[in-house]
Amino acid sequence: MTDIALIGAGRIGKIHGANLARQPGMRLRYVCDAVPAAAADLAAKLGATACDLDGAFAGDVQAVVIASSTDTHADLILRGAATRKAIFCEKPVDLELGRARACAEAVAKAGVSCLIGFQRRYDPTFAALERRLGAGEIGEVEVLAITSRDPGPPPVDYIRRSGGIFKDMLIHDFDVCRWILGDEAATVYAAGSVLIDPAIAEAGDADTTAVTIRTRKGRLCQINTSRRAAYGYDQRFEVLGSLGMLAAGNHRPTEVSAHKVGGISIDVPEPFFLERYRAAYAAEMLHFAAVLRGEAQPRIGIEDGVRALEIAEAATRSWREGRVVAL
Amino acid sequence: MTDIALIGAGRIGKIHGANLARQPGMRLRYVCDAVPAAAADLAAKLGATACDLDGAFAGDVQAVVIASSTDTHADLILRGAATRKAIFCEKPVDLELGRARACAEAVAKAGVSCLIGFQRRYDPTFAALERRLGAGEIGEVEVLAITSRDPGPPPVDYIRRSGGIFKDMLIHDFDVCRWILGDEAATVYAAGSVLIDPAIAEAGDADTTAVTIRTRKGRLCQINTSRRAAYGYDQRFEVLGSLGMLAAGNHRPTEVSAHKVGGISIDVPEPFFLERYRAAYAAEMLHFAAVLRGEAQPRIGIEDGVRALEIAEAATRSWREGRVVAL
Amino acid sequence: MTDIALIGAGRIGKIHGANLARQPGMRLRYVCDAVPAAAADLAAKLGATACDLDGAFAGDVQAVVIASSTDTHADLILRGAATRKAIFCEKPVDLELGRARACAEAVAKAGVSCLIGFQRRYDPTFAALERRLGAGEIGEVEVLAITSRDPGPPPVDYIRRSGGIFKDMLIHDFDVCRWILGDEAATVYAAGSVLIDPAIAEAGDADTTAVTIRTRKGRLCQINTSRRAAYGYDQRFEVLGSLGMLAAGNHRPTEVSAHKVGGISIDVPEPFFLERYRAAYAAEMLHFAAVLRGEAQPRIGIEDGVRALEIAEAATRSWREGRVVAL
Amino acid sequence: MTDIALIGAGRIGKIHGANLARQPGMRLRYVCDAVPAAAADLAAKLGATACDLDGAFAGDVQAVVIASSTDTHADLILRGAATRKAIFCEKPVDLELGRARACAEAVAKAGVSCLIGFQRRYDPTFAALERRLGAGEIGEVEVLAITSRDPGPPPVDYIRRSGGIFKDMLIHDFDVCRWILGDEAATVYAAGSVLIDPAIAEAGDADTTAVTIRTRKGRLCQINTSRRAAYGYDQRFEVLGSLGMLAAGNHRPTEVSAHKVGGISIDVPEPFFLERYRAAYAAEMLHFAAVLRGEAQPRIGIEDGVRALEIAEAATRSWREGRVVAL
Repeated sequence: MTDIALIGAGRIGKIHGANLARQPGMRLRYVCDAVPAAAADLAAKLGATACDLDGAFAGDVQAVVIASSTDTHADLILRGAATRKAIFCEKPVDLELGRARACAEAVAKAGVSCLIGFQRRYDPTFAALERRLGAGEIGEVEVLAITSRDPGPPPVDYIRRSGGIFKDMLIHDFDVCRWILGDEAATVYAAGSVLIDPAIAEAGDADTTAVTIRTRKGRLCQINTSRRAAYGYDQRFEVLGSLGMLAAGNHRPTEVSAHKVGGISIDVPEPFFLERYRAAYAAEMLHFAAVLRGEAQPRIGIEDGVRALEIAEAATRSWREGRVVAL
Repeated sequence: MTDIALIGAGRIGKIHGANLARQPGMRLRYVCDAVPAAAADLAAKLGATACDLDGAFAGDVQAVVIASSTDTHADLILRGAATRKAIFCEKPVDLELGRARACAEAVAKAGVSCLIGFQRRYDPTFAALERRLGAGEIGEVEVLAITSRDPGPPPVDYIRRSGGIFKDMLIHDFDVCRWILGDEAATVYAAGSVLIDPAIAEAGDADTTAVTIRTRKGRLCQINTSRRAAYGYDQRFEVLGSLGMLAAGNHRPTEVSAHKVGGISIDVPEPFFLERYRAAYAAEMLHFAAVLRGEAQPRIGIEDGVRALEIAEAATRSWREGRVVAL
Repeated sequence: MTDIALIGAGRIGKIHGANLARQPGMRLRYVCDAVPAAAADLAAKLGATACDLDGAFAGDVQAVVIASSTDTHADLILRGAATRKAIFCEKPVDLELGRARACAEAVAKAGVSCLIGFQRRYDPTFAALERRLGAGEIGEVEVLAITSRDPGPPPVDYIRRSGGIFKDMLIHDFDVCRWILGDEAATVYAAGSVLIDPAIAEAGDADTTAVTIRTRKGRLCQINTSRRAAYGYDQRFEVLGSLGMLAAGNHRPTEVSAHKVGGISIDVPEPFFLERYRAAYAAEMLHFAAVLRGEAQPRIGIEDGVRALEIAEAATRSWREGRVVAL
Repeated sequence: MTDIALIGAGRIGKIHGANLARQPGMRLRYVCDAVPAAAADLAAKLGATACDLDGAFAGDVQAVVIASSTDTHADLILRGAATRKAIFCEKPVDLELGRARACAEAVAKAGVSCLIGFQRRYDPTFAALERRLGAGEIGEVEVLAITSRDPGPPPVDYIRRSGGIFKDMLIHDFDVCRWILGDEAATVYAAGSVLIDPAIAEAGDADTTAVTIRTRKGRLCQINTSRRAAYGYDQRFEVLGSLGMLAAGNHRPTEVSAHKVGGISIDVPEPFFLERYRAAYAAEMLHFAAVLRGEAQPRIGIEDGVRALEIAEAATRSWREGRVVAL
């Protein structure tokens, strides 16, 4: 039996906790949170014990799931490495590249697993597409076009602390780019505008972006992102290869279609990430548990978190300086 | 806390058990099965106790979930009514209409709930469509066209004991017809053929059918059924109303599309009912639990099971005698 | 050069005339109409000469296209046979089966071609599907499900003279049934209701029907028809075979989709038959011209018109008498 | 009656000629071609007279349609302007921006119409989308994402003389960008690779590109282009606005879907531009005829041809120099 501590009892912590609680061979032992009552509540629901941070890294814990706020990630990873826990940490590793790299080094030196929460890699649609790519179904991969849009912008306060749209939102897309194209970014160009809310400009950020990544092998990736899609959370990509194209579409709540005077309509996509990636979050913990049981190699590591952050930094610079940035 | 006994630890019993185990205020107390080892296994997994049939109807049980073989349903319902348990029973009530009616009477006299497992009523797509119908989105309902196809025929041995395709397979569609058209069948005509396997003819059954139901208000329902669809489990219907049409499509495992020389393709439907109706089974137990907590009125009762069986009997007679049958 | 006379300068005559005028080796020589001014107008547009009925059957004419009102078809076919013209005649041959059969005999005796205007056989989608069936793509054909709905009911005056919904509207579907299933009807059952307009009931007709045809080989066909689909002209069918299903969908004016708060919508189908079957009408005259040039065998003959009418008569009787009718 | 001369009897000249020949009030009088026999053939087919270039600009001609090779466009436009003909000229005006501008000046000075053959503006799907944008259906336009892929690369010889992929292929997309975003390009960034055929690299061109255009108002356009899509001619775009998204999909030859063991598939897109834009070419000449009859203002002028060429030049420079280019 592997004993696990969950750090963070917020929205995403609750999801990871519930998913972990069902895995054979895993015991969710502790839950801690900056708000002790939140930890107590969730612990009670999941049959675990509330604890403080020291408890989460105590000797009877073999693995930690870090789902606390972004600014705590790096410290917790370092502490996990120091105490030789297997680690699952929500993205991003850190907003600051230097610190993220330091974490990666510590993890490597400790020789522990450190999976980063890029949940899209576990999405049934995205993962099936990636498997089919790997099986050669469309030959050599050439072009990736990602559409990534939130249903609406977060509060400007959040944006101010977010590290900017490239580190906050596109970091997922940068990971998808590396994962799907199977190659590292060579150059990045990011155009960006504020078309939704001038307050976002005042916060020093963009709300609408168009990013181009050219990889070392010359593969091309285009990402178009917006903080607002009136029709819901839009998460799609298309991959062109020498033998055809594979496309990943949105998930919809139901398969009802309505045929009426004005048109034939289907459901809009799932409203936001909690719904869209519900299956992905479950598969993510399934995988983490398999890694902990020694049945699977980690599909993703802290170095993937660092690489995505490198692209995010380059994109931010590209956008600010209006020029192409080489990595 | 409501204490529940699960009778039947087979394929569908496992699903109901797991779904029940997660409901607030519900305690899955006992599991029994004709094969005691199966009961013991499942009980262990779900934190319940294995018991024999007497245990399932003991005084400390408030509700029973009947998921045993069809030929046991009627006796168990009668026993549940006699011991004043709330009942959830898998379809069909019985293969014999007289016995089914006797069960309905006993249930009515006992004044207990008796929900029948027509899980399609809980399917997210079908249920959303029905809600939209109820909201008047397409005006007056006129025509229902159901496509209902299994991925492949069951063993002929199963067919021989099944009560025939109309009681075994179309009984679900007959319930959908009543539910969606909101009206009772007045006449039934069933055409049927054996086009898949001559052994099915020898077993006295059809494998491909085309049924027409005309309701008392003159609404029309067409059901086309086959024991075999090479592309998977095909479960769709379309409702025409005075203001348009609502259609319920299949669910697919992923939203990947492949664009290649020969065509653009998407996934075939979910392979069979366990996958297609996974969400429906969960919602069904959610509803049963809500009924048990007194938070919801049963959406379905044993009389719905009787009515569907009446149509199935009429359809069987229509097919055998080659004529229209009035109900 | 083949000289052709067009009889009927109405809506459908104009279409056939324009399509014929573009065929190599064909010369549209004469146009006649019960309204001489209409004939003169259309003749002027198409570079032909207006004439009376005698002119249309004169010795310098090799082929006639009959696009006049239904009640004139039989006489004109007989006259065409008597004067040994190649004939294209709009559907139906006649509303009265005896007269239709007499026409077929006269045509057979004269040894002339007599193509009937079942334009759906030339529709790009339907024709492609039929070719793929013929190539064995889904193995043995088992079930055909046809959805056939007009955008709205015609004037009741029209309905009164139409011969009833089965001869007027479903006759096309009966032809599709024979064409796609490749087999003759053995029994027909037609349920029908008046759900749109009580005046249709007073006119002795139904406006909503559900027809089942079982063929000699036991193949099953279901047709669901309505005089009204709020979303437009709905013309689809699905064919189940031993290896899968081929489905023919509606044509839409554009491929625009709109993704908005309430849903994702595409265009409704083409509004009515002139738009939906525009390409079919062109292909029909292309085929007639190929037959006239001796480059093709007629894909369809007057006997197909008679057979469809036989099913329409049987369906009408079935509906009126509430019973299954054998052919 | 307006007398028109058609210059160029090749593939596209034949299409324009046939489309023009059907317009009321228009008389296709002359056809000329560098290969006189080609002119004679086409003239015969269309009821026109073959002539030499002087004949095409003779005094009895009011309008010229220029469908000859690219290198002749500029001279013919200048000659048309000098002789005060109304002009329709295939794209591009010229491969050299200076010459294109000189043509635009001459046309302006002469005060004649000069429509450029950006046929996508007349495509039923694209034009409907643009009308709906104009009607405010999705509010303020923010982002345009264009997918533009040929079924396969042209011969390298053609590529060598083509002016490069940006002027040859993307020039259409640059026009779509200006048309749909309703704004002028401020900066262009073009990434490009040779992923299909090294011979294209030797010819100094790219075969796969990813272009980003930012307009003066900050709107963003992404274009992803390839010389090869195994599944056919891929011509789509999506427009995000403040209230939703409008998307333009491919046209398919038929609406057949096949449901088989491996998947559910529909037709690939129309194979290439002659099929995809058949309706667009017809609408284009309809519009030119309406302009000639004084019933419509030109929807497009030579300045649109110049602007698209400016973007193509900037994109070429951006790609060659690996930097963002301002316009």
